Amino acid sequence: MTSGERVAVLGTGLIGTSIALAARRAGQPVRGFDADPGVLAVAAERGGLEPAQSLSACVRGADLVFVCTPVPAIAALSAQALGVEPGAIVTDVGSVKAHVVADLEASCAPDELARFVGGHPMAGSERAGPQWAAAGILDGAVWVLAPSPSTAASAVETVEAWVTRIGARPLRLDPERHDRLVAVVSHLPQIASTGLMGLAAAEEAGEPDLLLLAAGGFRDLTRLAASSSRLWSDILLANREAVAEAIDLYLKRLAEVRDMVLAGSADQVEATFREAKAARLSLTAKPKVRTGVGVIQVPVPDRPGALADVTAALGAAGVNIEDLQIVHSPEGGRGTVHLTIAAPELEAAARALETEGFEPVQVA
Amino acid sequence: MTSGERVAVLGTGLIGTSIALAARRAGQPVRGFDADPGVLAVAAERGGLEPAQSLSACVRGADLVFVCTPVPAIAALSAQALGVEPGAIVTDVGSVKAHVVADLEASCAPDELARFVGGHPMAGSERAGPQWAAAGILDGAVWVLAPSPSTAASAVETVEAWVTRIGARPLRLDPERHDRLVAVVSHLPQIASTGLMGLAAAEEAGEPDLLLLAAGGFRDLTRLAASSSRLWSDILLANREAVAEAIDLYLKRLAEVRDMVLAGSADQVEATFREAKAARLSLTAKPKVRTGVGVIQVPVPDRPGALADVTAALGAAGVNIEDLQIVHSPEGGRGTVHLTIAAPELEAAARALETEGFEPVQVA
Repeated sequence: MTSGERVAVLGTGLIGTSIALAARRAGQPVRGFDADPGVLAVAAERGGLEPAQSLSACVRGADLVFVCTPVPAIAALSAQALGVEPGAIVTDVGSVKAHVVADLEASCAPDELARFVGGHPMAGSERAGPQWAAAGILDGAVWVLAPSPSTAASAVETVEAWVTRIGARPLRLDPERHDRLVAVVSHLPQIASTGLMGLAAAEEAGEPDLLLLAAGGFRDLTRLAASSSRLWSDILLANREAVAEAIDLYLKRLAEVRDMVLAGSADQVEATFREAKAARLSLTAKPKVRTGVGVIQVPVPDRPGALADVTAALGAAGVNIEDLQIVHSPEGGRGTVHLTIAAPELEAAARALETEGFEPVQVA
Repeated sequence: MTSGERVAVLGTGLIGTSIALAARRAGQPVRGFDADPGVLAVAAERGGLEPAQSLSACVRGADLVFVCTPVPAIAALSAQALGVEPGAIVTDVGSVKAHVVADLEASCAPDELARFVGGHPMAGSERAGPQWAAAGILDGAVWVLAPSPSTAASAVETVEAWVTRIGARPLRLDPERHDRLVAVVSHLPQIASTGLMGLAAAEEAGEPDLLLLAAGGFRDLTRLAASSSRLWSDILLANREAVAEAIDLYLKRLAEVRDMVLAGSADQVEATFREAKAARLSLTAKPKVRTGVGVIQVPVPDRPGALADVTAALGAAGVNIEDLQIVHSPEGGRGTVHLTIAAPELEAAARALETEGFEPVQVA
């Protein structure tokens, strides 16, 4: 077997088609199949894959099969692919891993299970279609591989080599551990965001002025709440125990803050906030800017090109922008750009902006 | 009395000095005082105010006094200002309102209380110094005025007229109501963010791979956790009952999501997420783009000027950027720009970026 040489993609949405494009870029022939012929046609137009008429036609003769469907369909399609092509290694890209292994173990023979490698590239989203696919979204992405005890070592190594070859970064985790970690850093943030937006919307029903007071912080916290409700319902239910455990840890922590606040324990509240601040600052910064960053706000007119003037001024001054957020004024017509800049470059950034007629304000 | 003609500012940090600059821009003479002579000197250099030697020297003869210190000092300094200048109306800019009124009622005469108007401009931050002040940060900002039953109607009207004159938007709320609303849209998001970052940091101690899996959503949710711990400790303790109540509402809502997930109630989870999504989309968008927005991700090299190339391409194509976020790859050197664009302009945005050699991906 020439490992990974012939690739099959089941589910040609954003991630599936991006995988096809990455494989094609690496010189590999790719076949693709999607239950929706329209989606498959668009994916084929992107030039990464040859469309197949059926799952079997897609998978037969493949060395490496990527199952890129929504979470609920992954186990059944993986089992089917394992059965159709006894020479293929099958891997998936779902956001939850342990349930796929459990479902497969209930329906597959040991020699089939040995060829299944759970996977999860930390890139893109399952929300959109193949017209937006690009090999580039996988460049440098962490790509979790989550073999089960049934998985053959050679199968994991094959997928790992393929992931490395297309420029992503494989990270081995066992399926349960993957699910516990994403429950904390991915599923819990989604729930926290949705919960906060839901609470504010419910309160606004009786307090119409509420959202007039919502500033940048509220917007940051609730941006994720605009995610696909169907996608998230599928993911959370597939990872229910780990999600419930993460929520419980979070509830406990928030209840502690409530108790400290009610008790007036200023030192405890401050220590809690100080520890989180230190952790966040070390997360934000790339290694070279771990010495600290600052935030500059710049009022801008809300029109095409305004942001280009801000970024051009900083680019010309040799200032790198670590992060950037736009906050619109509620009535439209104006906005504020929040720029995160490495501390040593803050002064240069402010001067460059002032020279171009902006009024920068450092706020952190 | 020529209302608001002579302005005094106590506490010449970012907000105090910005108020001074706005008053000066409106043609009003301004005196300022700060307990830190260094801060006062920097504020004076910005050209907005004449430095005073003491609180009394600052306030004497003023028509309108702005108390712009951290929350714990507001009540005492307001009482002092009310006593020094019987002709002055005194207002503050603190993030919490009811406790100031309660403290003042314990120490001031009725004719003094009549001249106090609690205030809270929803702009900037108390974190940084006068060197970053600008009149512009108050332009168009919602400025809450929270009179108590003791406040004279004429005093509120004077402050309201002043706020309007400098270009901000006054919004009357009673002090308790203000505190309940900011507990939900400002204090709770801060606690939710700090709690999530603290939880992830604690979990990372036993799971070093945890933060490798943290993507854009986690970063959005934890950005606020980098705020000043001292500032937030002061604010939360000054608003403890409303904060505890907001946390309790949030705990209840999160516990409901946990129960739905554990019970496998897909329809309920999906409905909860769908409602929050609808609320968030109507919050994000300016009126003209309430028909919908999309998100495009663009991989970029992480160097000065890269963002300018992206924004210039969109500006030249006449595409307005509704929101923008930068996500750095963990190893540095590359990043992804997340652009929020009104739905009708998405296609034009993608084409403009492709023409300039970028690989845009629509993800929402």
